[in-house]
Amino acid sequence: MAKRVASFGEVMMRLQVPGYEFLSQASTLNYSFSGTGVNVTSALARFGYTGYLVSTLPDNAVGDAAASYLQKLGINQLFIHRSGDYVGMYFLENGFGARPSRVTYSNRLESSFNTASEGTYNFEEIAREIDVVHFCGITLAMNDSIRQHMKTFAKAVKENGGTVVFDCNYRPSLWGEDGYRKSKRYYEEMLDLADIVMMNEKDAMFVLGMKTEKKERTEQLVELIPAVAKKYKISVIAGTHRSINGDNTHSLRGFIFKNQTFTFSKTVTFSVYDRIGAGDAYASGIIHGEMEGFLPEKTVAFAAAAGMLAHTVVGDTPISSEADIFRAMTESVGDVER
Amino acid sequence: MAKRVASFGEVMMRLQVPGYEFLSQASTLNYSFSGTGVNVTSALARFGYTGYLVSTLPDNAVGDAAASYLQKLGINQLFIHRSGDYVGMYFLENGFGARPSRVTYSNRLESSFNTASEGTYNFEEIAREIDVVHFCGITLAMNDSIRQHMKTFAKAVKENGGTVVFDCNYRPSLWGEDGYRKSKRYYEEMLDLADIVMMNEKDAMFVLGMKTEKKERTEQLVELIPAVAKKYKISVIAGTHRSINGDNTHSLRGFIFKNQTFTFSKTVTFSVYDRIGAGDAYASGIIHGEMEGFLPEKTVAFAAAAGMLAHTVVGDTPISSEADIFRAMTESVGDVER
Amino acid sequence: MAKRVASFGEVMMRLQVPGYEFLSQASTLNYSFSGTGVNVTSALARFGYTGYLVSTLPDNAVGDAAASYLQKLGINQLFIHRSGDYVGMYFLENGFGARPSRVTYSNRLESSFNTASEGTYNFEEIAREIDVVHFCGITLAMNDSIRQHMKTFAKAVKENGGTVVFDCNYRPSLWGEDGYRKSKRYYEEMLDLADIVMMNEKDAMFVLGMKTEKKERTEQLVELIPAVAKKYKISVIAGTHRSINGDNTHSLRGFIFKNQTFTFSKTVTFSVYDRIGAGDAYASGIIHGEMEGFLPEKTVAFAAAAGMLAHTVVGDTPISSEADIFRAMTESVGDVER
Amino acid sequence: MAKRVASFGEVMMRLQVPGYEFLSQASTLNYSFSGTGVNVTSALARFGYTGYLVSTLPDNAVGDAAASYLQKLGINQLFIHRSGDYVGMYFLENGFGARPSRVTYSNRLESSFNTASEGTYNFEEIAREIDVVHFCGITLAMNDSIRQHMKTFAKAVKENGGTVVFDCNYRPSLWGEDGYRKSKRYYEEMLDLADIVMMNEKDAMFVLGMKTEKKERTEQLVELIPAVAKKYKISVIAGTHRSINGDNTHSLRGFIFKNQTFTFSKTVTFSVYDRIGAGDAYASGIIHGEMEGFLPEKTVAFAAAAGMLAHTVVGDTPISSEADIFRAMTESVGDVER
Amino acid sequence: MAKRVASFGEVMMRLQVPGYEFLSQASTLNYSFSGTGVNVTSALARFGYTGYLVSTLPDNAVGDAAASYLQKLGINQLFIHRSGDYVGMYFLENGFGARPSRVTYSNRLESSFNTASEGTYNFEEIAREIDVVHFCGITLAMNDSIRQHMKTFAKAVKENGGTVVFDCNYRPSLWGEDGYRKSKRYYEEMLDLADIVMMNEKDAMFVLGMKTEKKERTEQLVELIPAVAKKYKISVIAGTHRSINGDNTHSLRGFIFKNQTFTFSKTVTFSVYDRIGAGDAYASGIIHGEMEGFLPEKTVAFAAAAGMLAHTVVGDTPISSEADIFRAMTESVGDVER
Amino acid sequence: MAKRVASFGEVMMRLQVPGYEFLSQASTLNYSFSGTGVNVTSALARFGYTGYLVSTLPDNAVGDAAASYLQKLGINQLFIHRSGDYVGMYFLENGFGARPSRVTYSNRLESSFNTASEGTYNFEEIAREIDVVHFCGITLAMNDSIRQHMKTFAKAVKENGGTVVFDCNYRPSLWGEDGYRKSKRYYEEMLDLADIVMMNEKDAMFVLGMKTEKKERTEQLVELIPAVAKKYKISVIAGTHRSINGDNTHSLRGFIFKNQTFTFSKTVTFSVYDRIGAGDAYASGIIHGEMEGFLPEKTVAFAAAAGMLAHTVVGDTPISSEADIFRAMTESVGDVER
Repeated sequence: MAKRVASFGEVMMRLQVPGYEFLSQASTLNYSFSGTGVNVTSALARFGYTGYLVSTLPDNAVGDAAASYLQKLGINQLFIHRSGDYVGMYFLENGFGARPSRVTYSNRLESSFNTASEGTYNFEEIAREIDVVHFCGITLAMNDSIRQHMKTFAKAVKENGGTVVFDCNYRPSLWGEDGYRKSKRYYEEMLDLADIVMMNEKDAMFVLGMKTEKKERTEQLVELIPAVAKKYKISVIAGTHRSINGDNTHSLRGFIFKNQTFTFSKTVTFSVYDRIGAGDAYASGIIHGEMEGFLPEKTVAFAAAAGMLAHTVVGDTPISSEADIFRAMTESVGDVER
Repeated sequence: MAKRVASFGEVMMRLQVPGYEFLSQASTLNYSFSGTGVNVTSALARFGYTGYLVSTLPDNAVGDAAASYLQKLGINQLFIHRSGDYVGMYFLENGFGARPSRVTYSNRLESSFNTASEGTYNFEEIAREIDVVHFCGITLAMNDSIRQHMKTFAKAVKENGGTVVFDCNYRPSLWGEDGYRKSKRYYEEMLDLADIVMMNEKDAMFVLGMKTEKKERTEQLVELIPAVAKKYKISVIAGTHRSINGDNTHSLRGFIFKNQTFTFSKTVTFSVYDRIGAGDAYASGIIHGEMEGFLPEKTVAFAAAAGMLAHTVVGDTPISSEADIFRAMTESVGDVER
Repeated sequence: MAKRVASFGEVMMRLQVPGYEFLSQASTLNYSFSGTGVNVTSALARFGYTGYLVSTLPDNAVGDAAASYLQKLGINQLFIHRSGDYVGMYFLENGFGARPSRVTYSNRLESSFNTASEGTYNFEEIAREIDVVHFCGITLAMNDSIRQHMKTFAKAVKENGGTVVFDCNYRPSLWGEDGYRKSKRYYEEMLDLADIVMMNEKDAMFVLGMKTEKKERTEQLVELIPAVAKKYKISVIAGTHRSINGDNTHSLRGFIFKNQTFTFSKTVTFSVYDRIGAGDAYASGIIHGEMEGFLPEKTVAFAAAAGMLAHTVVGDTPISSEADIFRAMTESVGDVER
Repeated sequence: MAKRVASFGEVMMRLQVPGYEFLSQASTLNYSFSGTGVNVTSALARFGYTGYLVSTLPDNAVGDAAASYLQKLGINQLFIHRSGDYVGMYFLENGFGARPSRVTYSNRLESSFNTASEGTYNFEEIAREIDVVHFCGITLAMNDSIRQHMKTFAKAVKENGGTVVFDCNYRPSLWGEDGYRKSKRYYEEMLDLADIVMMNEKDAMFVLGMKTEKKERTEQLVELIPAVAKKYKISVIAGTHRSINGDNTHSLRGFIFKNQTFTFSKTVTFSVYDRIGAGDAYASGIIHGEMEGFLPEKTVAFAAAAGMLAHTVVGDTPISSEADIFRAMTESVGDVER
Repeated sequence: MAKRVASFGEVMMRLQVPGYEFLSQASTLNYSFSGTGVNVTSALARFGYTGYLVSTLPDNAVGDAAASYLQKLGINQLFIHRSGDYVGMYFLENGFGARPSRVTYSNRLESSFNTASEGTYNFEEIAREIDVVHFCGITLAMNDSIRQHMKTFAKAVKENGGTVVFDCNYRPSLWGEDGYRKSKRYYEEMLDLADIVMMNEKDAMFVLGMKTEKKERTEQLVELIPAVAKKYKISVIAGTHRSINGDNTHSLRGFIFKNQTFTFSKTVTFSVYDRIGAGDAYASGIIHGEMEGFLPEKTVAFAAAAGMLAHTVVGDTPISSEADIFRAMTESVGDVER
Repeated sequence: MAKRVASFGEVMMRLQVPGYEFLSQASTLNYSFSGTGVNVTSALARFGYTGYLVSTLPDNAVGDAAASYLQKLGINQLFIHRSGDYVGMYFLENGFGARPSRVTYSNRLESSFNTASEGTYNFEEIAREIDVVHFCGITLAMNDSIRQHMKTFAKAVKENGGTVVFDCNYRPSLWGEDGYRKSKRYYEEMLDLADIVMMNEKDAMFVLGMKTEKKERTEQLVELIPAVAKKYKISVIAGTHRSINGDNTHSLRGFIFKNQTFTFSKTVTFSVYDRIGAGDAYASGIIHGEMEGFLPEKTVAFAAAAGMLAHTVVGDTPISSEADIFRAMTESVGDVER
């Protein structure tokens, strides 16, 4: 039977200026709906999972459009609540070469998701329907009420024998001034509940305040991640090191730490078409590998290839099939498939 | 020298689904920036006025896009303040025939304009630079702070010898439950300050709570408007009666009450392409007629033609020149102009 | 609990020239996926039903696109089989005024649906999961294998206590020369199995070969439909009379014959934006009324309003909610909803 | 064998603002290539003629684009010369309802066509390859050199036994002040050479300076056209009376005067999508009827239907087939053709 | 006098998803018409040849659109037959970087071209009108009837003293399982008739079953191609070696074997915008060089430059002029031409 | 108080084929309005200057569209005259990789700007309102009347104590045969009046006819530019050396010569999206540095970064803010800004 996954998170409306114009030059926008939870759930649905999103949308034209879009992505609507008035939005202006892309947010704090009251979701019931649940640090940054939802849900899943995934995903702009200090205790609460964690050495140093004498990224990683795993009793920690090259390419190297052992993927270098959401593709690859019992070498290679392909695809949400990813793991770039 | 006009109001981002699709069917949006103040100022700028908008925009990509758009409309940026984080937005789905158009708002209460603090604007200075100022009932519905801005500004203009225009523009959805009762005292404050008022018999009955035994609209109008003018010492009251026909056409009849006399335009019937903003075109026609000293017959015919043409033009903001409007007042529909 | 409906039918790819150009003038196409079964199922899903399509799609990029599109429409994928190579397609060039719209088909006979072998579907199992099933005369025209599927499925539903709906939908071009004669026996097989039938007097005369002396359409209808109901033991027969006016409007009058009684809707006249699929909206209204136990007056008015709104919406597939349709039954054309 | 037709005239680039925006609102243009000669030749090519355009285009990217476009329209390139630097252009802003369409020209006087020197075309050779040639009054308005080309070509065709068609097509803006007086002698030169002339009573009165006491258009027509035919020895004179209605429809009534007899078409009323070029469709219908030896009743009905359909088609250039036009002559508006 | 070339082949409708979306993400398609024969003929028409396509199109809206498109490309319609019902179609999803492009075919076997009966074409007559004819291995894969057409046509051309070109163009998906074995005898029949053949060492090894001990591509080529030329009495054999680099560039090296001598072009490396049809551009360059009597060095350099430029152009069909190709042979990349 | 800058120059309409199609393939154009003066003024307006364009536009729909566009760019309309009939236009076809971009001009010599009569502009008055004026060699190439305007304006500014900037910008196609000889005296007149000059060693050699024995570009520059500065008494000479690389990147190195000293920027290499107008961005950076009193090192780095960013932006006109440019001077390429 298909594995069942749920994510808890906000649905964001992405309003993207087509091509390479600024918002002040253009007159049309492409729109879609995404969010870390949407991305991870949809990616896993394409791998054959039954994918639920646990979220809230307004009962108006924008909420209807979001719901239709999630359906198109293959996300089951069963646990999507309808109340409140707004959907969080962001504007995306594509960068080119020396000019970086730029994101401008609308007021997401008033969104249906972020204002959903206690008792909106029946987490006990949901927990019984799923095998794994995914949370992320963006949701954690919203408000106390949301953090309460997260803890309640994570605990319910653990009690039902499910797996809890947490992606640290620290966004400085969301936590504001003195954010590392303010966020630490919330992060620790989630790490205490999590089985699989997406993070790297920067999260350990900045969010968790851990110290190292090492200067090089990989050395820092190798020193700090085992300490994190031990302290918070985490089975699997995975993440990536990314470098941005001058020629519109990025390089990515994935790692997974499990059973006291680090496993690294090859460093893959690739042209980037749409950077947003690629981290979620990597996370979905790790979750899939763990749920399927892949060897760590296969899991991290699969996740890295999933991440790579997500950079070549329009939109935040990964769209590659498992077969596409396996092919990208093994083949060199091919000619037209015809 | 060119007359100088200012409007005080919010800049809204209009996000319109192209063609006749629902937001849940389409994937692109056309965007523009408008608002009652924007529309009136821009219309008057096309008639040769120096047009200022007194408003606040965020200092980010969305604010920059709004500012560029206002520049394109010919609006002087001198009194546009930059602070806060958001621009109010609305989604527009075009109706067709038996299916009405539909507007869905984002959270405008958190916009830069609606959160601008006391002291943001130097109304004394602005008042010295203008001959006429325009306010509307949509702005009045926002919050106490905005209402305070409005009163301060209106008083400053009056003290400097300028003309105060107020468009009642009552929107039930903005005032919520029991809105007529809640809004009455704010409306009365503005009517006390206004020289030219846009309204009709419905505003008199519902907002101001005036009574009439008459059943027919025109009879109600003729009874109530003189009473309003007298009570609040208003020089000019103008407005329209609109009827929506089954065949995608609307009919419009304008009136102006001045010097104890009603003057009506002919009823004009016309195909409608974009209904939003047409009332602002009518208001700008009345203001122009009054500032130029047109006879009432000419003023109301000019305003009605301006309103009619605004229904044939893309976007909220009137774009017809004075010459276009004069031609539409006198000519029948013409063949291609070549 | 939500009622459960299934349709059996082909998914067609609609390739529409945007605007009013000919295929030989344009260079882009809008595409969507539809079909009578898709349209009826999706319309009922919007009314709250669990809607299944029983069909076959190829396991390639076109099949994936069709499946995503059906998901977006809210159609459950559980009984959609994947095999074969092709999706049926049609090109649509929009007419304007005196110039009619034009449809050109690709080769649908080789489609995955039309070549699906015996045993593809487990009709016994499907029949247990649904309350009502919908078939149509377009599917009936395909080939013997498809007709065998239809009979097997209809019998299984009847045996499980479900309701069988059949829409006669005779398309001359699909049956070719001497089509009325060739098709009669297949139609009779379906009528024998059906509880609710969509047809009018033309089907009775031309397909079933019934005779009448009457000349006027309504008189023919009133004479022939009761005879059909009696002969084939059909509980409910419903349909419409349409007339096409010179000014881009159509007029529609619906009828329902049930318990030996005819009930007619008012004749509604409306501007037409997209004619295709409107008959399916009417059928879905009849099915909904019957499943919900509406009075015949309400059922036929609801179906007529559903049909009318479907003419105002982009695409073949009805998209109105039950609330939209109730409002259209009672209200006159409204101003912008804001 | 297919009849062979040539037109002599300029290729214009049409730059059209999509939808109903003004040039000052939009940011994209649709472009195509047309002109009276292009339109008539292409229409006749669709009826099965070999259609030549005699014209000049620059040997650059714009000229190449024009040439490709003419090829697509089925126009033979054999007599299109390449020299000079520019193509004439015009901008088209679509009107809506009460707002008329608007055309703005670029500098066509410097175009390749209008600056082509004497000797550019070998009219003797061309005349031997064609059965009928078409000229129009727009070309006549350009300059002396063009007028010399026209006369030389017309004479060559007459000497070779071909038929000369001249469409009066008087455009006030091209002749400037005192245009009727200035243009008269050039018009008379063409009328002396023409066998078939497109005109109506206005041309007779204003261009040719003929007098009538009648007030009503048809009475003026019936009095003046026979006098024109007699004075200039013209076999066939045809034209239309058009009226523009308030609801986006036009009414058209065609006439043909031949063998001392007037024949009128029915008045056809129809919705208008693209008005430009419809007169050329009418002219092509008259030419076709005359070349094929239709009875006058059939010719004028065919021409009126061709004109009507041209109003329903995108672009200046008629695109209907002979079969489409015959169907439009006889049938009422039809449902979707599928 | 201009050389006259004909190609025999199917016209395919290319339905391309714009940008980099999947078919399951987008809602519009760009369409055009192409095919190996179309591409080669059009390329040679741009070099000044009279270019005929010998093919069959349906007499419906799709066939009309194809015919218009071919006209635009400058292809003479004289030998295009109209019968049957369908045009072959393929969907193209553009790859990006690590993600390859993907082609999905509609059912081309039922197309007008592939079902055209014996006697459709008068090959004797056509052969007298042309100097060179082009065939390809894609057409050869269709069915026996098509193969019969090919042989009849090739023999007729040879008997009339014309030149026969055959492009091996082996597509595994068209021949299915055991395709090399099945196709061999048909390939040999064409090679026996051909004067100029497009192929490389892979065709020799896999299709013709020739053996070599060599491992390196160029060594295999140099050993096998002379043997092929000798065995089948072929005057000229030409082809390319392509390698696909990781950074969106391809490298291409052309060869020509003639008079017992190999001549190679420089290896050119270039960014790729649209890969499809580039092989046809190379073939058209070889044909042009041979027909014009270029030295082999010039022919192969011209063909390689033509192939390179075809990768930079939208659509399957080469669009560069002879002058463009000569410039690309000699110049380095230039600044804007203005 | 904000510095005030004016440019004297023509407004050109840019008609760009979207994507990478040729004009003969596409059917839509993107349009905008630009010109060297527009670009420099708009760039400086974004840095906080009051920016005037001194130019002439027609009083028609095209002129209105141009004026709106300039307003959107933040250019003050005070000194834009309205007369004449035409706007100069150019068509732009984007190159890709090995295929260069291509520009085709319409007839700009008849434009409103180029036909504006003596006395159109009140240069004395304008000179009193500005601190710096910018001219360029493109304008100088137009005609005697324009050159007279330039000299009059430059003298007026000098007499009022303003700064005169002249960009040599020699375009061979505008001066025609023997252009260097014909243009020399006009260039010398402007150099005599200029304080800041944009040029490099090629202008010195070809336009001014200066000699050098050096072969290498930088050596030629270092020898010739000081001689030019001395001969024409120019305070500041600045310019760039550009090289175009094979991989869609350009390399740029800026220089400034001032106080007898050369200062060079680093060579920056970057991907190019839109090359046109980048030189104007560099010039605006030099002007800004000089007006603000930057050190030469900062000025030339700022100008080079401004030029680099202009290559990444859609359209001719630079759109980067001062803050964007400062960031690009110091940072490496960043990740998405969110």
